[in-house]
Amino acid sequence: MTSLDLTADVVTLTEQLVDIESVSGNEGVIADAVEEQLRALAHLEVSRIGNNVVARTHHAQAERVVIAGHLDTVPVNDNLPARRDETSLHGLGTCDMKGGVAVALRIAATMPATNRDVTFLFYDCEEVEAERNGLKHLGESHPELLQADFAILMEPSDAAVEAGCQGTMRVDVTTRGERAHSARSWRGVNAIHAAADILARLNAYEPRRPVIDGLEYHEGLNAVFVRGGVAGNVLPDECTVSVNYRFAPDRSEEQALAHVREVFTGYDIEVTDTSPGALPGLSVPAAAAFVQAVGGEVNPKFGWTDVSRFSALGIPAVNFGPGDPHLAHKQEEQVPLAQLHLVETRLRTWLEPNGGQIASAP
Amino acid sequence: MTSLDLTADVVTLTEQLVDIESVSGNEGVIADAVEEQLRALAHLEVSRIGNNVVARTHHAQAERVVIAGHLDTVPVNDNLPARRDETSLHGLGTCDMKGGVAVALRIAATMPATNRDVTFLFYDCEEVEAERNGLKHLGESHPELLQADFAILMEPSDAAVEAGCQGTMRVDVTTRGERAHSARSWRGVNAIHAAADILARLNAYEPRRPVIDGLEYHEGLNAVFVRGGVAGNVLPDECTVSVNYRFAPDRSEEQALAHVREVFTGYDIEVTDTSPGALPGLSVPAAAAFVQAVGGEVNPKFGWTDVSRFSALGIPAVNFGPGDPHLAHKQEEQVPLAQLHLVETRLRTWLEPNGGQIASAP
Repeated sequence: MTSLDLTADVVTLTEQLVDIESVSGNEGVIADAVEEQLRALAHLEVSRIGNNVVARTHHAQAERVVIAGHLDTVPVNDNLPARRDETSLHGLGTCDMKGGVAVALRIAATMPATNRDVTFLFYDCEEVEAERNGLKHLGESHPELLQADFAILMEPSDAAVEAGCQGTMRVDVTTRGERAHSARSWRGVNAIHAAADILARLNAYEPRRPVIDGLEYHEGLNAVFVRGGVAGNVLPDECTVSVNYRFAPDRSEEQALAHVREVFTGYDIEVTDTSPGALPGLSVPAAAAFVQAVGGEVNPKFGWTDVSRFSALGIPAVNFGPGDPHLAHKQEEQVPLAQLHLVETRLRTWLEPNGGQIASAP
Repeated sequence: MTSLDLTADVVTLTEQLVDIESVSGNEGVIADAVEEQLRALAHLEVSRIGNNVVARTHHAQAERVVIAGHLDTVPVNDNLPARRDETSLHGLGTCDMKGGVAVALRIAATMPATNRDVTFLFYDCEEVEAERNGLKHLGESHPELLQADFAILMEPSDAAVEAGCQGTMRVDVTTRGERAHSARSWRGVNAIHAAADILARLNAYEPRRPVIDGLEYHEGLNAVFVRGGVAGNVLPDECTVSVNYRFAPDRSEEQALAHVREVFTGYDIEVTDTSPGALPGLSVPAAAAFVQAVGGEVNPKFGWTDVSRFSALGIPAVNFGPGDPHLAHKQEEQVPLAQLHLVETRLRTWLEPNGGQIASAP
């Protein structure tokens, strides 16, 4: 079995995790290695469900928090094994998100006592279709394992807190016309020409920027696909503009759809995909304490992440992890060594039983 | 060998031609049958080039005319064999254009003397890409066989003369933008949104309706395809509108392109396909005499047809054949029996050596 050393420093541990290739669907080896290390720790109760590993403390603390990360990566792109230079660790998964997983494993291994009970959660298939997502599966099959007052998803956020996430909805907006030979175009109605009005409404659209819990979100309404056409000599009778609405978490999916219907009044609308946003939930005491402990910098999360799955379970959640989120899925992804140390230190401080002194890494 | 009877009436002969299946690329049997019948006629010199058959009179008349038709059809669509009712003959090719071919064969077989020399021309692969077109091949390999003062293409025209044809040009008009994640759309430029202006120009476009040789043509500028999009969460950096310009024959291809460039000033334009129009050429004596002989009704031809190939060889040409052109390529295509007889009678009158009396069909 490929082995991990949880007593090594966080950079070395990240490197070890990166060098266990774990493209979505192929997480068996890395899940085995994680499970093996966690089972050796007396203060943790470990559950293995598929390629998901859950490890829980039982200190009878008043509060329980989840610290979660996915074990999978996007496909290999000539960027393995890991390579370290003076400032960064480079390679597939360094940023998204084995750096965050390494921090979580370090905390699990080196803090036998914590001021909050902790549920460490490592899951599979985050980088592929939602139906395969390990966190989704766990939420459906073992919701008791996810129960907590607060959750931290260790997705890359440049070591700052990114709170909540915006929802996303895709709709097809379709125009209808009447086919005719293009040599006698006055006999038909061109559905592509009719789409001018849809695009004009998109151009005139003013996205909302609502402030929620002190964070400014930024919506967007954008065509992501357009398609129409029958043949090179035929006026098309149908044209579809696929529109992606990114909506701030003060709107439900129902409210988002009502808004989109209003923008495109008069057109056929078909929803092809939708995921709710997640409110930042920073007013919850556990969340507020976390923000304070890690330095107070909080940004809104524009993209959709699995924090929304916690939110759907009634658990406030934030993203907090090492690495620049814009480097995720890029061949040249990397994580700054300093951020790995910083994130570990901040989590450690927050969970320290004697309450709040910055602890030195063991 | 499947046989034809050129002494049968034109409806029966059309039926025989229809029942020899001859989808483009499969014209061998029908070309053999046509060639066999024409070679039996002493007043014709017959040439066979591929699946093209050319039969010429040599009466030393002052004028020579081409009477032409294609032997192929679009694919079978559960519409063979031919079926006759009281008013029409139904089935694949009845309209496009074995009715016209039957008329031409009847004239060839039953008029050993004519007041003009005639070149009967039957060719293959009209219904497919231009590179396979038999008339195009003959024009390139045996231009001497096509030499004439005037040409009649027996495409369906409801037994009226359709003169000239409009040209056709396809261009791709492309917008450029800048990709961005749709969750942070303000970082990019949406190329689909930018296409609103292209569609607005198309909506505002006023097509010309020039009058040429007394015929009113009718241009058109239409989007026939639109495509754009990278992924469901990405602002696209490119959107292409494919536009088809149908232009009256008073404009050359160069003039047509200049016009399209003017309409879409500021955009990348790529020409993907172009074919010139054909002027009606009704002022040429042979053409004027023909129009007078067949009743004087002349309409402009909006669609592009092979008359343009004759025009390119310097030979004025018209469409004149039985059948409603709107039924071409439809499963339910048919030809009125009365039009088959009418077109045969009118051609016969025009070619009668004693000059212009309506002859009874033999």
